[in-house]
Amino acid sequence: MSTVDKAEKKVASKKSTKKADAYIEGASQIGIEVRKEVDFSTWYTQVLKRSEMLEYYEEVSGCYIIRPLAYNIWQEIQTFFDAAIKKLGVEDTYFPMFVSQRQLEREKDHIEGFAAEVAWVTKAGSSNIENPVAIRPTSETVMYPYFAKWIRTYRDLPLKLNQWCNVVRWEFKNPQPFIRTREFLWQEGHTAHFTKEEADTEVYEILELYRQVYEDILAVPVIRGVKSEKEKFAGGLYTTTLEGFIPATGRGVQAATSHCLGQNFSKMFDIVIEDPKDAKKVHVWQNSWGLSTRSIGVMVMIHGDNKGLVLPPRVAATQVIVIPCGITSKTTEDDKKLVENKVNDVVEELKSAGIKAKADLRENYSPGYKYNHWELKGVPIRLEIGPRDLLNQQSLMARRDNGSKEPIPLADIASRISDTLKTIQKDMFDRAKKVYDDHVKIVLKWEDFVPTLDGKNFVMIPWCEEMTCENSIKEKSTRHVTEQEAEDERAPSMGAKSLCIPLEQPNDPPIVPGETKCISCGGLAKNYALFGRSY
Amino acid sequence: MSTVDKAEKKVASKKSTKKADAYIEGASQIGIEVRKEVDFSTWYTQVLKRSEMLEYYEEVSGCYIIRPLAYNIWQEIQTFFDAAIKKLGVEDTYFPMFVSQRQLEREKDHIEGFAAEVAWVTKAGSSNIENPVAIRPTSETVMYPYFAKWIRTYRDLPLKLNQWCNVVRWEFKNPQPFIRTREFLWQEGHTAHFTKEEADTEVYEILELYRQVYEDILAVPVIRGVKSEKEKFAGGLYTTTLEGFIPATGRGVQAATSHCLGQNFSKMFDIVIEDPKDAKKVHVWQNSWGLSTRSIGVMVMIHGDNKGLVLPPRVAATQVIVIPCGITSKTTEDDKKLVENKVNDVVEELKSAGIKAKADLRENYSPGYKYNHWELKGVPIRLEIGPRDLLNQQSLMARRDNGSKEPIPLADIASRISDTLKTIQKDMFDRAKKVYDDHVKIVLKWEDFVPTLDGKNFVMIPWCEEMTCENSIKEKSTRHVTEQEAEDERAPSMGAKSLCIPLEQPNDPPIVPGETKCISCGGLAKNYALFGRSY
Repeated sequence: MSTVDKAEKKVASKKSTKKADAYIEGASQIGIEVRKEVDFSTWYTQVLKRSEMLEYYEEVSGCYIIRPLAYNIWQEIQTFFDAAIKKLGVEDTYFPMFVSQRQLEREKDHIEGFAAEVAWVTKAGSSNIENPVAIRPTSETVMYPYFAKWIRTYRDLPLKLNQWCNVVRWEFKNPQPFIRTREFLWQEGHTAHFTKEEADTEVYEILELYRQVYEDILAVPVIRGVKSEKEKFAGGLYTTTLEGFIPATGRGVQAATSHCLGQNFSKMFDIVIEDPKDAKKVHVWQNSWGLSTRSIGVMVMIHGDNKGLVLPPRVAATQVIVIPCGITSKTTEDDKKLVENKVNDVVEELKSAGIKAKADLRENYSPGYKYNHWELKGVPIRLEIGPRDLLNQQSLMARRDNGSKEPIPLADIASRISDTLKTIQKDMFDRAKKVYDDHVKIVLKWEDFVPTLDGKNFVMIPWCEEMTCENSIKEKSTRHVTEQEAEDERAPSMGAKSLCIPLEQPNDPPIVPGETKCISCGGLAKNYALFGRSY
Repeated sequence: MSTVDKAEKKVASKKSTKKADAYIEGASQIGIEVRKEVDFSTWYTQVLKRSEMLEYYEEVSGCYIIRPLAYNIWQEIQTFFDAAIKKLGVEDTYFPMFVSQRQLEREKDHIEGFAAEVAWVTKAGSSNIENPVAIRPTSETVMYPYFAKWIRTYRDLPLKLNQWCNVVRWEFKNPQPFIRTREFLWQEGHTAHFTKEEADTEVYEILELYRQVYEDILAVPVIRGVKSEKEKFAGGLYTTTLEGFIPATGRGVQAATSHCLGQNFSKMFDIVIEDPKDAKKVHVWQNSWGLSTRSIGVMVMIHGDNKGLVLPPRVAATQVIVIPCGITSKTTEDDKKLVENKVNDVVEELKSAGIKAKADLRENYSPGYKYNHWELKGVPIRLEIGPRDLLNQQSLMARRDNGSKEPIPLADIASRISDTLKTIQKDMFDRAKKVYDDHVKIVLKWEDFVPTLDGKNFVMIPWCEEMTCENSIKEKSTRHVTEQEAEDERAPSMGAKSLCIPLEQPNDPPIVPGETKCISCGGLAKNYALFGRSY
């Protein structure tokens, strides 16, 4: 049975059993049938499929079709981020997707982190390939032999490359559209520097750009931090991260990472220059950083509601849908024509003000059907125009994000809509930020850790940063449950991971060096760390 | 031995033997060492590698690294073409790169065309995958099961999708950077229409956009035409094509194709709607069309010269390089500073006029070295500024495409440069077009066919369009040569293929239906057809 059939079957079987509370009354096959707050995973699948963001790819499990509505979001992210990194002197490039076993295995920790998920091409046509090749799970080992070739003197530094591409990680864990998929799209930046300071600076410059992508473009709040030793990138020196929060499940999601690789890879791949001061060989300092289509899934999970998608204006392919209404059997043909003309005029006026507007003049659907249709697709603003609106020279504006409705004068419609789009973008972020903040709980005794976690929160604790302690926290916070309970996304059973050591540390109470204790093991605490259940 | 080692070795061995005439006197390891007109394939490799457009990927033969200078060209093409197809209502999407054997083999002619080159993933980590998956050689069979799902009524038509992605064709023929590679980047458009007329119209709209990419952006002339039955897309109804010409080898190169698939795939994949008139099932009409990174290679082959790359201004990452000169040991520090300031001022002025300008203020290189360096990289315009130029308020402008030099006043430098960039773009196209036109020879007797072909020409002949005749022409025009001769790209030995039936038919003499004979088989000629040796 294909993945999609299973998903549908799951819905069907749930209908008749325990989760009756999940079903939205009067919902049609076209809209969303289950409540986000009750059956999150079915809700997520329905929103993605029915809004036409994504299709399940039946042939290969864990692969999905990114449809235009979602791909457009990716293109908006690309446009912003590509321009931003070019300003930092990064150049786009394209390396092959294939890597030989020999290169792939050159950095030991790195390959240990990826080996289990690597897809291998062993045949071409009907012949076996003499040396099977791997499909990149990430491109460090593809690129760095060439860094070694191209970097000869300090004048060749910094080298800053980026590529937009697909990567494959053949995971056997439960796949989740956008969040965990066997093939995904991302950008991967790879840079080499003369000094550690330069590399450090860039790590945080990139992290800040990622923050802008999430917070300013996708209206998704994130916490910036540094990963623990256990959770850092395989083979790297340290990893900085953005951590998102999915309120519906209380789970965290790693949103983007910017790694300082230190000199580990440059030693393995022999990327050296001569120090201009003393002619000694120096290994370069390297970074790598990536942001993927996972970001689209995070945005959907956070902003979507029981009517479907809710798109932040900055990534909405259609920002305003204009719908004629109030046309009845008594309306004259002339009046109907007048309304339709006004709808078209408004669309043109908005478009010339740079707003992505569209008319829905379809004859065979009622206004109500159209409202549902565009709400499902997350269009930020709906404008209704009927015969009476023409008399009053106004249009009813409905906001998708908060459902508010307000008549606005046609006279200054472009500036009003433009302002409202900005307001929506800000409001969506502010609301999500408040929810996130409310779910980050400072916990100062171990006894409160698991209950706070089970209350769908992140837990911020004074922590020793030791790997043994992290393993023990995970073990102590794993709920031992039945298999059926384990399937319930509302109460996940997996143990807590350290998500990051946040850059902005709480200071009430502050960590007193040499005094404050780790709440788990009692050793000395170094910093507050954010723990949570995570995707 | 890796591909690149072989290529270098080939150069080394040739140096000492017969091709002494190929070597450019005084050329350094940095510049181009062999003449384009004598040893084209070594020249091509050197230009690509030394200009830093491309690097050979040693690990997997037939794969190459597209470096920033070349990737920038691809991005320019993307920007133009993506905007153009969006205006036609095409939406960007992303389908998985994997396809199951079952789907891949659904259209019989199609799979016959691709089977031998399909790469198969059979392992993930250390486990065998139960059902191996193919990497897309093209995405008809990936996408069309979903076309069948999404297209239900005529209101769902036209469906117009496009994706920018990588594809893999594991060819065993000699690879050639950009021109024939195992992995390449392209866009593939896939559309479905209610009527054949609509599909036909789109096929030619897209072909026209491809023509604009080649002629207007890359300054590469092409001939538009329709492929013969033998050469059309596997599984399609008919294929339209752009055919380019590489004067140095006298060989043709298929530049881009726009296919009408007819109803072949819609029948195999069951993509049907109800005719709104009579409720009968109708199979939709489909097109697919693609343009790849091959275009970059064609551009290099046509415009490059013995100093290296020559970039058309529209795709040059750097359009103007400004170099200080005339600084000697007698120049005062103040004068040197004045020159450098002026260089920077000019760059800023050009940039604010939207021109991609850059200063080369490196201390450790002579002006002469810099001239060679930027000529190798194909920068369209070089500006030289020295102390004497400051006195005269002028700068010496050197054009890369024709080597001409001319002082221009600093006062109106931005407008002069802007005009000159347009002139260069046009001149490059016009020159290439003239060469192409000069090499298309109308041949009216078979005896002239092979000699004309051997003179590095395309041959335009009255032709019957029969497949048996095409096979026979290929056989009759194959030169039977020694293995050593066969390696010589200057005199290729392979037989001629029909390149296309050109849309613009010669009319001197015109084809008289029922009267004009095919010059090969003596059957009735339908049209003039273009034959040539081809990549």
